[in-house]
Amino acid sequence: MRRLLLRFSAAAAVGGAVVALFPQVAGAQSVTDPVEVLGTQVNLLWVVIGAAMVIFMQAGFAMVETGFCRAKHAAHVVSTNFAVFGLGFVAFFAVGFPLAFGSFSAPTIGLDNPVGGALVGSGDWTFLHQGGWFLSGQSAATGGAALFGLFLYMVAFMDTTATIPTGSMAERWKWGSFCVWGLFCGAFYYPLFAAWTWGGGWLAQSWHSMHLGAGYADFAGSGVVHAVGGVAALAGAIVLGPRIGKFVDGKPQAIPGHHIPMAMLGTFILLFGWFGFNAASTLAATDIQFATVAANTAIAAAFGAVASIGWITRRTGKPDPAMMVNGMLAGLVAITAPCAFVAPWAAAVIGAIAGVLVIESVFFVERTLHLDDPVGAISVHGVCGLFGVLSVGIFANGSYGAGWNGSDVSGVKGLIAGDVGQFGAQLLGCVVLCTVIFGISYAFFKLQDRFTSGGIRSSREDEQLGLDVPEMGVTGYPEFGRQSHI
Amino acid sequence: MRRLLLRFSAAAAVGGAVVALFPQVAGAQSVTDPVEVLGTQVNLLWVVIGAAMVIFMQAGFAMVETGFCRAKHAAHVVSTNFAVFGLGFVAFFAVGFPLAFGSFSAPTIGLDNPVGGALVGSGDWTFLHQGGWFLSGQSAATGGAALFGLFLYMVAFMDTTATIPTGSMAERWKWGSFCVWGLFCGAFYYPLFAAWTWGGGWLAQSWHSMHLGAGYADFAGSGVVHAVGGVAALAGAIVLGPRIGKFVDGKPQAIPGHHIPMAMLGTFILLFGWFGFNAASTLAATDIQFATVAANTAIAAAFGAVASIGWITRRTGKPDPAMMVNGMLAGLVAITAPCAFVAPWAAAVIGAIAGVLVIESVFFVERTLHLDDPVGAISVHGVCGLFGVLSVGIFANGSYGAGWNGSDVSGVKGLIAGDVGQFGAQLLGCVVLCTVIFGISYAFFKLQDRFTSGGIRSSREDEQLGLDVPEMGVTGYPEFGRQSHI
Amino acid sequence: MRRLLLRFSAAAAVGGAVVALFPQVAGAQSVTDPVEVLGTQVNLLWVVIGAAMVIFMQAGFAMVETGFCRAKHAAHVVSTNFAVFGLGFVAFFAVGFPLAFGSFSAPTIGLDNPVGGALVGSGDWTFLHQGGWFLSGQSAATGGAALFGLFLYMVAFMDTTATIPTGSMAERWKWGSFCVWGLFCGAFYYPLFAAWTWGGGWLAQSWHSMHLGAGYADFAGSGVVHAVGGVAALAGAIVLGPRIGKFVDGKPQAIPGHHIPMAMLGTFILLFGWFGFNAASTLAATDIQFATVAANTAIAAAFGAVASIGWITRRTGKPDPAMMVNGMLAGLVAITAPCAFVAPWAAAVIGAIAGVLVIESVFFVERTLHLDDPVGAISVHGVCGLFGVLSVGIFANGSYGAGWNGSDVSGVKGLIAGDVGQFGAQLLGCVVLCTVIFGISYAFFKLQDRFTSGGIRSSREDEQLGLDVPEMGVTGYPEFGRQSHI
Repeated sequence: MRRLLLRFSAAAAVGGAVVALFPQVAGAQSVTDPVEVLGTQVNLLWVVIGAAMVIFMQAGFAMVETGFCRAKHAAHVVSTNFAVFGLGFVAFFAVGFPLAFGSFSAPTIGLDNPVGGALVGSGDWTFLHQGGWFLSGQSAATGGAALFGLFLYMVAFMDTTATIPTGSMAERWKWGSFCVWGLFCGAFYYPLFAAWTWGGGWLAQSWHSMHLGAGYADFAGSGVVHAVGGVAALAGAIVLGPRIGKFVDGKPQAIPGHHIPMAMLGTFILLFGWFGFNAASTLAATDIQFATVAANTAIAAAFGAVASIGWITRRTGKPDPAMMVNGMLAGLVAITAPCAFVAPWAAAVIGAIAGVLVIESVFFVERTLHLDDPVGAISVHGVCGLFGVLSVGIFANGSYGAGWNGSDVSGVKGLIAGDVGQFGAQLLGCVVLCTVIFGISYAFFKLQDRFTSGGIRSSREDEQLGLDVPEMGVTGYPEFGRQSHI
Repeated sequence: MRRLLLRFSAAAAVGGAVVALFPQVAGAQSVTDPVEVLGTQVNLLWVVIGAAMVIFMQAGFAMVETGFCRAKHAAHVVSTNFAVFGLGFVAFFAVGFPLAFGSFSAPTIGLDNPVGGALVGSGDWTFLHQGGWFLSGQSAATGGAALFGLFLYMVAFMDTTATIPTGSMAERWKWGSFCVWGLFCGAFYYPLFAAWTWGGGWLAQSWHSMHLGAGYADFAGSGVVHAVGGVAALAGAIVLGPRIGKFVDGKPQAIPGHHIPMAMLGTFILLFGWFGFNAASTLAATDIQFATVAANTAIAAAFGAVASIGWITRRTGKPDPAMMVNGMLAGLVAITAPCAFVAPWAAAVIGAIAGVLVIESVFFVERTLHLDDPVGAISVHGVCGLFGVLSVGIFANGSYGAGWNGSDVSGVKGLIAGDVGQFGAQLLGCVVLCTVIFGISYAFFKLQDRFTSGGIRSSREDEQLGLDVPEMGVTGYPEFGRQSHI
Repeated sequence: MRRLLLRFSAAAAVGGAVVALFPQVAGAQSVTDPVEVLGTQVNLLWVVIGAAMVIFMQAGFAMVETGFCRAKHAAHVVSTNFAVFGLGFVAFFAVGFPLAFGSFSAPTIGLDNPVGGALVGSGDWTFLHQGGWFLSGQSAATGGAALFGLFLYMVAFMDTTATIPTGSMAERWKWGSFCVWGLFCGAFYYPLFAAWTWGGGWLAQSWHSMHLGAGYADFAGSGVVHAVGGVAALAGAIVLGPRIGKFVDGKPQAIPGHHIPMAMLGTFILLFGWFGFNAASTLAATDIQFATVAANTAIAAAFGAVASIGWITRRTGKPDPAMMVNGMLAGLVAITAPCAFVAPWAAAVIGAIAGVLVIESVFFVERTLHLDDPVGAISVHGVCGLFGVLSVGIFANGSYGAGWNGSDVSGVKGLIAGDVGQFGAQLLGCVVLCTVIFGISYAFFKLQDRFTSGGIRSSREDEQLGLDVPEMGVTGYPEFGRQSHI
């Protein structure tokens, strides 16, 4: 029922594990071999370093989103990216973590003592009175450090999801309404799909219940983190409506970002943090697949950037810096699910496709759907996140993932390697993301808009003046010349 | 007499150590078991990675302080933050390191060959002719690499202290006078309290000499680094006096920072680096408490940020971005001393209190003391640093710190766990910080002001024009419109 | 023939290795001792973390170069730094990596299965039909992960070289011409000297063929990365000619950078990344010399910065922020080759010399050669890179590098330690860099200029307006006041 425990048990059974240093690990206390002890310590170190890198990605999001918005909203946009870290964190600490990962085991880091079932899918609701709220309860039972390390890694992922809608909803979102989103995302919204995928929930069990390959597989979160955030970004953009002046007579107007170097700095910060995001998702340094994951991550980023440069130049005649940025991010988002399961050439192909796809999606969202997404979050995280999920079902080559989700596969295999069932599992996940998860976020924003006095959208005056002064009480740059009031 | 050697010896004696891979380590040469060798290598790697992360915090300070100052001083403020890294480093390399850590052993990284007593407290002054200056002498004796790794980690901490006053003294501090501070801090100012706390000095020995719990305990430096820097920031702000225009008829005027996104970027860089600051202070990957430390660090940061958002909104009606930033930093500063000794719930409480405390302190410093601290350094590092030191004496739960400071405790315990003596040790440290250490820094700035031609404060003309051109010869942003000349 | 394999074999033979955990490693498959397995896993982790840090340096270059240029070119300059990551990467992935490292073995990370000879020097061209293009072929043979980890580390180094000329050629380089450079550098230009130095080529073999010490030795790339990039920066600046307005009646005019804080942020990012660049070049955590390397790196950076502050103040009366930045970078570039071979005092001396040298070189390039290098790339990377290479031949103390390049030395020794031959090897490398490698880059730019319609330099109109709009289609800062049109 648990991603890692069962993966390793099965791996030992079939004898095909890449690394099986801890085949008989049953609990932190039972590891006595000095080499195994040191191995779990190193693994935990890798998880903590990875967590720090993922948390640093918050800076990347803040810079990308602020750079792509206008100067008059800069303090507001950067502050939403800043505050969401704390808001989501507090809610996840209190409620979300045990909901999502109540039954999660990670023998690689010496953590093997789940208190109960996950949020949905296991049928086991005993965790509700077994604790785990505020990191209590479980801590004593499990020895603490490994659990806390895992929490740190997982909370960093949640915060990535939480910050994605701040991009598509930028420049017109009330501060107070935004704060409620941060809490909601950390407490319930993120944990739901995380429980279904990584917490042993029904999507992970689809290999058993529906005979779909190794079950829904998402190595580091193209779906769990990016698509979940991306569909919320879509829902929020629909509920808020476009910024004043974005569409004139139905035709989209360019509203250029105010700080290109800031956006590119943010992208490089994201690239750096992504190595923690993807490569530390092995939850083990003793599983050297982390190196393949890291290389695939960089390959997809590079091919995404280059493909987008070529495609946008072909489309518009200029290598638009915003599209370069989105091309690299698209490659990164898309490789996140398949990064451990595919060969380098496939990472290149996935990255290149994502680099083109994101541009077409940005145009489609703006020109066809007439939605306003100031930073391209819907396309980058939503569309390319879904593409990443599907990529597992296409490009996974079977060399990794023995016993994934507790199934009996010798490795996760996609269409090219001949497993149609795996593609079905991935497609199932995408359908759920586009219906259930999108629906929940849409309902949340719609209800919040209904029951918030004046709605969740800023007043027309505030938006035109810039949200900085009315919402935050300061301007982002009080001394940098005249700023636009489009 | 030494923080780590004795901690581990005692741990072996009482049998309660969290990790005791190296109980009989007596020197680098004597480790022959391959697993132990690999363990020390991994530990050293963690220390070096941690050092790089702490050094990167210089960028965070530079961005926070520059962002919170005015554009006309931007090149000056960022340059002080830049240059202090080198100035403090050179002095610490030459003199400060052996003064502070001449008797420091770190068996976890294979370093166990102290050359002599620390600066003050051991009564042993033989180190004065045994060398260690410029990393000489000791290097041959100890095999080098481990010592150099330790030096790198320690110099990074010193530089954090050195850069704190550049915040409270910004916009009116002569460049030349600042340079002298950098050298003074690296050579003598920082090493003093570091020797007393971590170098085996009298505060660390207060468990023995005064029967105060495990003696003065500061895991990663709320006191040694932040409060030491914070009281110097206070002393400097007093000696310099407020900026022109800060107080009109005794009433403080708002002088908004010129670049909010820059300040928030800097805060996220600091958050990232803080994982190296706190979690690598185990000086061991084999002590998995590093994971608890890392989680507690993030928890305090998140709760500090959220508490400050709530408190400042309650106070002023707006979620002031500057206060958000200071709230997160306050949580980080406060958790730095207790991070290894407390449970996650306590980290949350400490962070939340710090997030409120920093706001009240900023108002108190400005409105009651009539001091001008452009970035809030006194409140963030001084006040919350002292609060962090006291937090050990309140919240430490006894689950970690067996044999700390060479004492016979089974774990460091605060008031809640029933040890009044530990609270006494922490209070003693705070008193010393507020009297002796503050006094030294005040005397330094006062004497420097007296014996510097024209004093250490910039001329009125330079301050009004902006320090960039007269001091640095360039402006921070020669092309960004008209800048204020308040 | 291979840097690491032979180094370790020889080390085992002479019994003088600092660390010899894996003396009989012959291939990844043959390691069965659990401690050795864990050691290779930790080593690979260090290489991957190091790679992420080096890749993050791209952000540092982007910020330094953009900050030192004018606002009207900001989107163009930052975009070249952004795009070169992908362009160079794709070419290196396809062609450059196997050309340079086709015969590279790294037993420390469990990689010992070269497919063939390197680009030049081995006389073995079988690799041409053995594959390795696009990371294919080799991957199956070697088990993949270790090779991919090595690739990731090596591609990051290549991209550093590729981005250096974007500094000296900034503000007047056509986008399309720049893109061709990125591809050329990744495919052929960088791999050539890398193969000669690290790939087992003829410079590495000069200990054998010419009896020059341990052969040409460059620990982490003062030559391979920085000087190779620096001579290309020189070639490009010559071919492009100076910016409009840089020289009036033959006298150089100051064209100040538009964003000093951005440049200093970039420098700190580079400092952080440099710990991965240098210290992870041990390709092993089990070789604790990484700690010495890291400390030496920081020492040279600090002394470089302080020396440059002193020297420029003496020269011009002001501590020019641009020179502070270049002083720190100069120290970092210079220590990169000798960092593992010298004592801390020598690192301080090398850093200090570099900090002075870079200032004199900047003046010489501008005032005597009448070349225009907007960010000082020729001096920082070219001149100080060559100085770093020579420093090995002067300051190497013989305590590290047993069996380097497969030679029989007990350690790399420079002039001070009595080995004139080593100095000869280093001098040979410098001569090759200044003639062959410079010549190749000059020929490339010259030919490209000849065969590109209108040449590789932007039109006069575009340059005066700023390259942002005509080349990129956007401006870097559409809202920040009036920008200069010098």
